[in-house]
Amino acid sequence: MTTQPVELTVHSSQPYNAEPPRSALADHDLTPLDAFYHRNHAPERPRIDPATWTLRVDGMVERPATFSLGALRERFREHTEVVTLQCAGNRRAGLMAVADLPGETPWGPGATGTARWAGVRLADVLREVGVEPGASDVVLAGADLPEESDGGPYEVSVPLEKALAPEVLLAWSMDDAPLPAAHGAPVRVVVPGWIGARSVKWLERVTVTDGPSHGHHQAVAYRLLPADASPAPGRGVPLGPIAVNADVLAPDDDAEVAAGPVRVSGYALAGGERTVVRVDVSVDGGATWRQADLEPQAGRWSWRLWHTELDLPAGTTRVTARAWDSAAGVQPADPAELWNPKGYVNNAWAHVTLHASARDDG
Amino acid sequence: MTTQPVELTVHSSQPYNAEPPRSALADHDLTPLDAFYHRNHAPERPRIDPATWTLRVDGMVERPATFSLGALRERFREHTEVVTLQCAGNRRAGLMAVADLPGETPWGPGATGTARWAGVRLADVLREVGVEPGASDVVLAGADLPEESDGGPYEVSVPLEKALAPEVLLAWSMDDAPLPAAHGAPVRVVVPGWIGARSVKWLERVTVTDGPSHGHHQAVAYRLLPADASPAPGRGVPLGPIAVNADVLAPDDDAEVAAGPVRVSGYALAGGERTVVRVDVSVDGGATWRQADLEPQAGRWSWRLWHTELDLPAGTTRVTARAWDSAAGVQPADPAELWNPKGYVNNAWAHVTLHASARDDG
Repeated sequence: MTTQPVELTVHSSQPYNAEPPRSALADHDLTPLDAFYHRNHAPERPRIDPATWTLRVDGMVERPATFSLGALRERFREHTEVVTLQCAGNRRAGLMAVADLPGETPWGPGATGTARWAGVRLADVLREVGVEPGASDVVLAGADLPEESDGGPYEVSVPLEKALAPEVLLAWSMDDAPLPAAHGAPVRVVVPGWIGARSVKWLERVTVTDGPSHGHHQAVAYRLLPADASPAPGRGVPLGPIAVNADVLAPDDDAEVAAGPVRVSGYALAGGERTVVRVDVSVDGGATWRQADLEPQAGRWSWRLWHTELDLPAGTTRVTARAWDSAAGVQPADPAELWNPKGYVNNAWAHVTLHASARDDG
Repeated sequence: MTTQPVELTVHSSQPYNAEPPRSALADHDLTPLDAFYHRNHAPERPRIDPATWTLRVDGMVERPATFSLGALRERFREHTEVVTLQCAGNRRAGLMAVADLPGETPWGPGATGTARWAGVRLADVLREVGVEPGASDVVLAGADLPEESDGGPYEVSVPLEKALAPEVLLAWSMDDAPLPAAHGAPVRVVVPGWIGARSVKWLERVTVTDGPSHGHHQAVAYRLLPADASPAPGRGVPLGPIAVNADVLAPDDDAEVAAGPVRVSGYALAGGERTVVRVDVSVDGGATWRQADLEPQAGRWSWRLWHTELDLPAGTTRVTARAWDSAAGVQPADPAELWNPKGYVNNAWAHVTLHASARDDG
């Protein structure tokens, strides 16, 4: 472990999209704050005064209401969850290596991170205002103004069933400190097990509806398209829960190491309601596998860190990792099987290449 | 559709294990009763008189109780669910083609089927007897006596959380008729989304516990093992929910068809809490895919039937199908990636080979 500042790879500045190197994520139950990825949709970050901020809750509810931050804190019990967030575009670079994805951000392995989030349950707020019969979805709108949103705010939705799940938080705290502005202060949504795009930052409005959001980021983007389709409203399948995924975090890709015993570590994330039950590591491209040691989870909704020790010969070795979820679902081998026109959810087997030099025993 | 009797492939007679040809499953929301697979663990089928049958409910409960069939019917509301059951060994033959699995039943595509089940919710029964704090699992024991059970009955368990889910039934009816003896009469468990082995037939005892069953079929069998491991108590991962799977059901494998438009149909099953969101069909080994048409589901827990029309050239075409679940999870390509020492959960891409003869246009 070092205490050097983490240097992020900045993919764009407006909107600000940046990720840490994989090594900055390695072996941390909770991702250091300066290594937490930034995924923005609007060119400018909203500036919100927490003292005047309010949350409007309306739509198909019996008692529409507006809550100040103080009212949320007084009215509802605070809950804490350790949750891994993961951008739907994480590992997109692996899909771009199969075929180009013009205009899409070439995320590497770092568009994921884990934090301890605290705030109130969305379910408690919804119960307070009373959801009307016939409601099916909850639209979440932020204060940020993406260009694709036609002047409106960033807006997506989650099914009511998930919105009422106890793990979904309106969070004002990240790792026991006030939520930073860059991560959505004063209040953001945290939707465990689902693509990061549903965890709306700078939350301003919660609207109960009888159908999913018609906004760009629900109806056009963040959808799984067949390889030969182009994005259009309602086309493809909306991404919600994420599929089982894993990555090697240390050593870094293309690292120089000494031949002999080398500790390899990473994370796995089951997605949705599932858990990680096994992680396999291979040095022969998947012909044979060993099982990595799984570390205890920091929380039900956090990633599972893993590690193993490989005995590397001098020369170049490609290390492969894959995870299994609690339904015996396993990552597919090849990103070519998964390539899709928006480049989402690359959960193909993970690889790093290690260069081992013979040890100087003289 | 024909009304010819279905000829089952009998893998063994004691225990009786038999499956229909895939064509007998094709295009039926509900599997015809004579095409429903038989998976038994004991050499002899129990003979139970429904008039004297009782269900004992005990363990970590406040009020242990014994229910007759009449008492179950009177005390609790009847519920109906259309549910697809699938043996964990379904499609094992595809794994055996990778490497032999001595002593295991070579199930083809037919160890799955869908029925309308009616009975009472296990949750209602558990609430009636009062589950004690600290309970975590529910052990389900049948009247059948497998040789591996050391004189005891067939016994497995499900986590309490699943046992309390509204979809889990103690069923006495199959397709609006009394449950047949061969399928577990008078009462069997139906655990939607999970491997068939948890849907205990000839149910006699429900025991609430603070840990999973120690019985052979929970602690040794029905576990996912690494390729180089051998079965032993507690080794590997218990199989519960099943991973996304699909198969081509018609035309049959190696069928002779006329060149030109050919209707291809099959099923897909997401497993666990997930749903099927897309089915892809390929005639070039997965290089390119078309999307099949998905039919309405007969129920939340039933398979999703699909069909498409292929324009087949004269000669041999290998048709491939794969399904995606609602978390963007997709079937892996190659059964070699999945091979495991007990041969469970082969959810690799499905294939049939079709032989098309040129049409006689003279």
